[in-house]
Amino acid sequence: MTIKARGYAAQSDTAPLAPFEFERRDVRANDVEIDIEYCGVCHSDLHQAKNDWGWSQYPLVPGHEIVGRVRRVGADVKKFKVGDLVGVGCMVDSCRHCHPCEQGLEQYCENGNVQTYNDTDRFGDHMRTYGGYSDTIVVTENFVVGVPENLDTQAVAPLLCAGITTYSPLRHWNVQKGSKVAVVGLGGLGHMALKLANAMGAEVTLFTRSSGKEADALALGAHNVVLSTDDEQMLAVANTFDVIIDTVPYTHDLKPYIQTLTLDGALVLVGLVGELESTISTVPLIMGRRTVAGSMIGGIAETQEMLDFCGEHNIVPDVEMIDIQTINQAYERLLKSDVKYRFVIDMKSLKNAA
Amino acid sequence: MTIKARGYAAQSDTAPLAPFEFERRDVRANDVEIDIEYCGVCHSDLHQAKNDWGWSQYPLVPGHEIVGRVRRVGADVKKFKVGDLVGVGCMVDSCRHCHPCEQGLEQYCENGNVQTYNDTDRFGDHMRTYGGYSDTIVVTENFVVGVPENLDTQAVAPLLCAGITTYSPLRHWNVQKGSKVAVVGLGGLGHMALKLANAMGAEVTLFTRSSGKEADALALGAHNVVLSTDDEQMLAVANTFDVIIDTVPYTHDLKPYIQTLTLDGALVLVGLVGELESTISTVPLIMGRRTVAGSMIGGIAETQEMLDFCGEHNIVPDVEMIDIQTINQAYERLLKSDVKYRFVIDMKSLKNAA
Repeated sequence: MTIKARGYAAQSDTAPLAPFEFERRDVRANDVEIDIEYCGVCHSDLHQAKNDWGWSQYPLVPGHEIVGRVRRVGADVKKFKVGDLVGVGCMVDSCRHCHPCEQGLEQYCENGNVQTYNDTDRFGDHMRTYGGYSDTIVVTENFVVGVPENLDTQAVAPLLCAGITTYSPLRHWNVQKGSKVAVVGLGGLGHMALKLANAMGAEVTLFTRSSGKEADALALGAHNVVLSTDDEQMLAVANTFDVIIDTVPYTHDLKPYIQTLTLDGALVLVGLVGELESTISTVPLIMGRRTVAGSMIGGIAETQEMLDFCGEHNIVPDVEMIDIQTINQAYERLLKSDVKYRFVIDMKSLKNAA
Repeated sequence: MTIKARGYAAQSDTAPLAPFEFERRDVRANDVEIDIEYCGVCHSDLHQAKNDWGWSQYPLVPGHEIVGRVRRVGADVKKFKVGDLVGVGCMVDSCRHCHPCEQGLEQYCENGNVQTYNDTDRFGDHMRTYGGYSDTIVVTENFVVGVPENLDTQAVAPLLCAGITTYSPLRHWNVQKGSKVAVVGLGGLGHMALKLANAMGAEVTLFTRSSGKEADALALGAHNVVLSTDDEQMLAVANTFDVIIDTVPYTHDLKPYIQTLTLDGALVLVGLVGELESTISTVPLIMGRRTVAGSMIGGIAETQEMLDFCGEHNIVPDVEMIDIQTINQAYERLLKSDVKYRFVIDMKSLKNAA
């Protein structure tokens, strides 16, 4: 027995996304079936649809910022009941017994967690996984999180990736009231980092390479904006920041930012998958016990913690709603960073004529 | 009133070290005057004698691994009395009121601590500082540490730089019983890192580029030796180490080592002052929340803690004793890494004919 699902898929690395019918597994004892209401559009959806990272398999249904309501639950499900507002992020399973999994760090599963799409369920039914650009999804309850009902539901979805990707390093590097946090880049990740760091009580600075973003940045939670191409402005913030969240997704030079870290400060890379633009000098690292680190999404428990935090502080991303029929145009705009700050697909649109 | 001192100095960046008479300040209320018995030879002595870093002023008396006995104390000195065995490391003062100084992290003083030699005492008498290749030194008691009497006195000196430089990051990155620690490079710093990490209860691995160091490494405290030029051996230790102490003083590539860090592992640079050999990929950082960091010596309180730890565990460096008259030959051998593992000058030799 399987469940019939409808969605949008890429059939090859050159094909635009188009309507696609496929099957998902039936609900098992620990599974939750979710009617997908909204799905965020992450930059990595585009990369994988186009096979930019070389591991795409087709057909490929993207989407790992999923929000919807529980339609059915398996016999042993305890966390959720029919009608609950829930979310699914980048992972739908992991080995659950390695050292990271046991610590709730499923994102670093030593045996390779199961990605929400473009993956194979190695620990379950060995079926291919398909993402949230679809009407329904079946996920083990352990990898489903509850979404606070007080939040604007259609804006919540990007929290499942952009939100947790910035929340987790802010927490791991102990951001709290009075911390000085800088954010590099103002896109889907960057705008969430501003909101979250602000809500944690930090003094928040945006680094940007282009002027004209001041008003938006301040509205999103920044207290200061520093033009990183202006040497004088950069010198004025030397030795300042406890944590820098670097969300820039293309190769760039870390040197100007490292010198703005304070003693024991950490620059955390969350956006770039690849080589840095130039070599790093050890001098600012050694002279201030500074660190350069990376961080990837967050664990399931921490994702729930982040959603609860957002519920408490009424934080949602700034989103632009689209219908699934315009996803290919949205991808083109994404390539030009022409979105404030995340596209969210209203999945009701699937029912419209293509 | 000043104190007459004798030592060895470089008079220019090309001159060999030669006998030199100079003056030190008289003992003030909080000062300790020390009869220097031994002084270690650090690689940075050579760099500064030759002006490799561009900030040397001459005459320059090197030496910041100083051990001796208290000859005189000022009226307000409380920590030491005449006859005590004491040490002086890389710093002889700091501003004492900035945030790092208040935390006991004088090595990161925001106003620039006073280096034991080749510096000017900005917070005191504004005299030039001269190092430990001499018969006597006057230092405020706050920057003098006590040396355990049970240790082999002539071998202690390198603890004041090589010892604390490796002890501090091992402690800061929480090395303890069961930790997996790797050390890159087997010189003055590297051999201390092996001894100290072993005494902290870690499982210790030496990375080396040349075979034939196994027996020495095991004798010094390593449990394993990995040839870093052997891809198979490197693959076998992927995702293994909690902390890597990288002591290599010349430019090199971090890539092979980063992949051997475990989740949340840290590679700490303590030897290289300059650019890394190649760019870093963010992938292993992001996929395992790994960090690359730097660390510089340690604070005064931590230096005392390190000496007490060494006293308790009976740890001293492996040293080769020399007379001051052979310092220039020792520098030549140092350039060829021809020393196991640190030269220490017996300062009694100053009294011999030049």
